[in-house]
Amino acid sequence: MRYFQEELNELQRRLLEMGGLVESAVHRSVVSLVERNEAEAEAVLRNEARINQMEIEIDDFAVTLLARYQPMATDLRFLTAAIKINHALERIGDLAVNVVKRALRLIREPPVKALIDIPRMAALAETMVRGSLDAFVKRDSALARQVLLSDDAVDDLLDAIQDELARFMQQDPATVSRALVLLLAARNLERIADHATNIAEDVIFLVQGVDVRHHAEPPS
Amino acid sequence: MRYFQEELNELQRRLLEMGGLVESAVHRSVVSLVERNEAEAEAVLRNEARINQMEIEIDDFAVTLLARYQPMATDLRFLTAAIKINHALERIGDLAVNVVKRALRLIREPPVKALIDIPRMAALAETMVRGSLDAFVKRDSALARQVLLSDDAVDDLLDAIQDELARFMQQDPATVSRALVLLLAARNLERIADHATNIAEDVIFLVQGVDVRHHAEPPS
Repeated sequence: MRYFQEELNELQRRLLEMGGLVESAVHRSVVSLVERNEAEAEAVLRNEARINQMEIEIDDFAVTLLARYQPMATDLRFLTAAIKINHALERIGDLAVNVVKRALRLIREPPVKALIDIPRMAALAETMVRGSLDAFVKRDSALARQVLLSDDAVDDLLDAIQDELARFMQQDPATVSRALVLLLAARNLERIADHATNIAEDVIFLVQGVDVRHHAEPPS
Repeated sequence: MRYFQEELNELQRRLLEMGGLVESAVHRSVVSLVERNEAEAEAVLRNEARINQMEIEIDDFAVTLLARYQPMATDLRFLTAAIKINHALERIGDLAVNVVKRALRLIREPPVKALIDIPRMAALAETMVRGSLDAFVKRDSALARQVLLSDDAVDDLLDAIQDELARFMQQDPATVSRALVLLLAARNLERIADHATNIAEDVIFLVQGVDVRHHAEPPS
């Protein structure tokens, strides 16, 4: 079984490499949106294919280990968590690409407003992604639970952002199309936070064997 | 191995039961939105917990089979497809709940406009969910590929819906908040179609052993 342990370590190493790429994509997507930075946006688009490729490789690797070693208890939980976290990371990468596409549209036009709540929500989403991966590496369920708590703050910020953008649209119809793009970018960030929450739930299940799914439903 | 085959049949049976519940939730969510039908909306909310519970049970069952029987080739592909399809179905159920919550908000207010493209897109999304499950049952990759083709039509409809709602908001600021809710409901339907596309991709992989993920990226 020593060989199996090495394979599990290799799987975790690859997952963290993917996590690093995805974290960087999220960070750059936020910079591209908030600072109207086209170079950072292009960097995210360039890395998309690599993240997608890694997801397929990690998925294949994890499923192969599952079938080959028929693990029990902790190792089984680790493998199923790895498969889920891998998928969540790929979705986060996809959402960062969506943010970037929206940022590129907005860069070409005058700003709707000074962004305040969006950078705040983006920072929170980034912290949640990093926190959920840290919790996974350290098998730290207390840290994972902190990530779950942040999700409510993200939801409140999204509500505030939506209300404010709706007011802009009502007061100045010329802002409607830009405000809509901004709103959708904000929703992408909220979904990134959602996936970080899912990763944190997977970590809690991994560490404690307790299923916390569906106790805190993702916001609409 | 006869017992293993029976377990696989049982897994498929449960997955199809879940598929039936989710299809019904999608259908009812569309009726609640398009016909402003509160009773159908409430029915979807009542079934949510059951769908969530089924997801957990099916996931546990599939992972246990994977670990216990260390299957190869087709059976391995079936189990991994089942795990992914199960998850996609649960996400579709969640999105139907989101549609319903938005429908309930809209029912309390005067209609923004006569709905034309939204029912069309909803019908397409429903057909895709049903088609992807049919393709799974029949192991029919041609049918699965038809589902993939519909995804472009859904994207075009979503673009048309967004443009039209933006025009409404520009012309009559009093419609902004309702039009936004309608827009988000339409986006939920588009994501339902997206998940049906993912299921169809899983079916193609199951039948042909060909990975078609990331060849047609989900729309933003």
